Amino acid sequence: MADTEPVINKGLEGIYFAESSICKVDGQAGKLYYRGYSIEELCGNSDFSEVSYLLLNDKLPNGNELEGFRQQLADERYLPKSVVDFIKENSMRMHPMDTLRSAVSMLPAYDTEAYDNSPGSNMRKSVKLISKSASIAATIGRVRSGGDYVMPDQSMGHVESFLYMLNGRKPDPKTVKILDVMFIVHAEHSSNASTFGVIVAGSTLADIYAATTAGIAVLKGPLHGGADEAALEMMYNIGDPDNTEKYIEDALAGKQKIMGFGHRVYKTYDPRARIVKGYLEDLQTNGSGELKNLSQIALRAEKLMIDKLGASKGIWPNIDFFAGPVYVSLGIQHEIFTPIFAASRMSGWCAHMLEYWKNNRLLRPLEKYTGQVDLKYVRIEDRK
Amino acid sequence: MADTEPVINKGLEGIYFAESSICKVDGQAGKLYYRGYSIEELCGNSDFSEVSYLLLNDKLPNGNELEGFRQQLADERYLPKSVVDFIKENSMRMHPMDTLRSAVSMLPAYDTEAYDNSPGSNMRKSVKLISKSASIAATIGRVRSGGDYVMPDQSMGHVESFLYMLNGRKPDPKTVKILDVMFIVHAEHSSNASTFGVIVAGSTLADIYAATTAGIAVLKGPLHGGADEAALEMMYNIGDPDNTEKYIEDALAGKQKIMGFGHRVYKTYDPRARIVKGYLEDLQTNGSGELKNLSQIALRAEKLMIDKLGASKGIWPNIDFFAGPVYVSLGIQHEIFTPIFAASRMSGWCAHMLEYWKNNRLLRPLEKYTGQVDLKYVRIEDRK
Repeated sequence: MADTEPVINKGLEGIYFAESSICKVDGQAGKLYYRGYSIEELCGNSDFSEVSYLLLNDKLPNGNELEGFRQQLADERYLPKSVVDFIKENSMRMHPMDTLRSAVSMLPAYDTEAYDNSPGSNMRKSVKLISKSASIAATIGRVRSGGDYVMPDQSMGHVESFLYMLNGRKPDPKTVKILDVMFIVHAEHSSNASTFGVIVAGSTLADIYAATTAGIAVLKGPLHGGADEAALEMMYNIGDPDNTEKYIEDALAGKQKIMGFGHRVYKTYDPRARIVKGYLEDLQTNGSGELKNLSQIALRAEKLMIDKLGASKGIWPNIDFFAGPVYVSLGIQHEIFTPIFAASRMSGWCAHMLEYWKNNRLLRPLEKYTGQVDLKYVRIEDRK
Repeated sequence: MADTEPVINKGLEGIYFAESSICKVDGQAGKLYYRGYSIEELCGNSDFSEVSYLLLNDKLPNGNELEGFRQQLADERYLPKSVVDFIKENSMRMHPMDTLRSAVSMLPAYDTEAYDNSPGSNMRKSVKLISKSASIAATIGRVRSGGDYVMPDQSMGHVESFLYMLNGRKPDPKTVKILDVMFIVHAEHSSNASTFGVIVAGSTLADIYAATTAGIAVLKGPLHGGADEAALEMMYNIGDPDNTEKYIEDALAGKQKIMGFGHRVYKTYDPRARIVKGYLEDLQTNGSGELKNLSQIALRAEKLMIDKLGASKGIWPNIDFFAGPVYVSLGIQHEIFTPIFAASRMSGWCAHMLEYWKNNRLLRPLEKYTGQVDLKYVRIEDRK
């Protein structure tokens, strides 16, 4: 087989590797479903804890189940002292995603059932990972801003606790609500690169800590998790709303990639982007100073890009384009955007791993060899 | 496209995702080439340092180049104090592969050019990763045996240094030579699951630390890096050479998987297994006690398995079957087998990443959605 001419599926685009009942991304219609519920339905009615339960368990919880799940999240919220010490010692020395990856990687040292790979244990570890990854992300942001570890308050909700551990003060309900929606829209997106990376790792029967650590590694890349920060940076470079159109036109003329536009799957408007854009429309009207400017820049840039590339080239805004200014409006520093993405997507990663292990198959595709064979070893004296 | 019936390529078996000139695995002929040189040619003439240079640079080094490369490896051998402290504090609390993964993950904190993604910097970081991953693996073994970190000796060769840091004493040349061959045969094997995981991570333009950390996560799984330890465990369970045939026959009758046999690509004898088997044949004749027993068990089990499954089912021994007893003969504890695999494969991982980035494409395959859509959110009071 290797000696006929194989078809090379660059980027594995269009290749299916498994079945899944977790998430449907309908890139033509611009629809997104988690376990059958549209993203609009969930953002309008649910919260991140409930959505995490839904993703992991394939059903909405009843009252008792939801209460138990929230309690488990709250119980797991604290961080082992060694992990806190590691963050304090290293988080100024490396990228927050590197700190997050390393801190999650060391969690099995503090889990007595780390190597129990039964489904029940993996479900418990999933809750632990969802809870602790948020605490780690918050603590990294906290320490990088000069603060100390904030002991979690078990009476708070998941996203409320994240903000409390990040800022050291109880957040207002409106901030919690908006950030909760950001967590929901980032919780899952079928087999994108990081989720695929999680499954590649898990497919060797490596455990869920190894698999999700791999996911954080994958998510770091600017073509994936880092796109929102890059899009925001562009908006800051534009600076003045009246500079928007010229900046974008120059960038397009110079063949620059505009981060936050275009998507491997969506060939129309990303439904998550529409939800998040709503907050910017509000800021454009009611925000002040930097926030008003930033939202105007984002909305004017979006309009121009759609006029130029939307219908004609199928390049539409995706969630990464609008996420940055919304985080800024919530007082969240840029470098924590991707860790928040990771802490949100932890739910999807764990859900996919639990599902894939029910019918596991080692992922091992092929490369076409283009080199030589049977070269003779040359003595070092005879080499050029 | 998503609404027609897609073909699902389970395990991505037979699917090509890229071209590569690094490694040819000819599974029909039982041949393995690194950069065009057969594995026999390299094991017979070269050493791991030179093979690493070859994998990274696509040519054998001349005298000056090899000397410079060895010097770089030696210069990078020390571990930052924080990494040593981390290993001391955590390595008794978690699996050595978890400690290795976490320790490699934190290396960017101690690399001033960690976030320079130029090819030159990535080449330097590759050498750093090859060097330090071996030091980390050795230190994990050392600490788990009750010893303290051994300061590396820059005058030693790479594998010699590994053994020195593992055992605290200068190894004999024969042990170094055999372990060097083990490093060579583990250095590269095309796009197997861990290398593929590295490329998935790197394809988002995450950096080489993120990518190789993902590789270590993938390698942990018993279907991949852990197979040699599992095969060895079976040999210990067999215990007495005369028990071999009955044990294997019972296991086959009970439909148990015999670790170390069968391979996704090799449908004949794994050429690496043949090289490693040579050491066991020597031990069978010249070894004493446990080693003589272990090698007899391995060779008798292999003979029976080939008679039963070789030609008829295409299930042949792979390298994992023979590696364990050879490591034991070199005095290496079981739990360090997979970390040694990782430290060897680091060369292949980095070579693949450097190559893939020249023509990068985000890896993002698809899952076929089998769930529902447009479910209506039900109020929690109304759920069962």
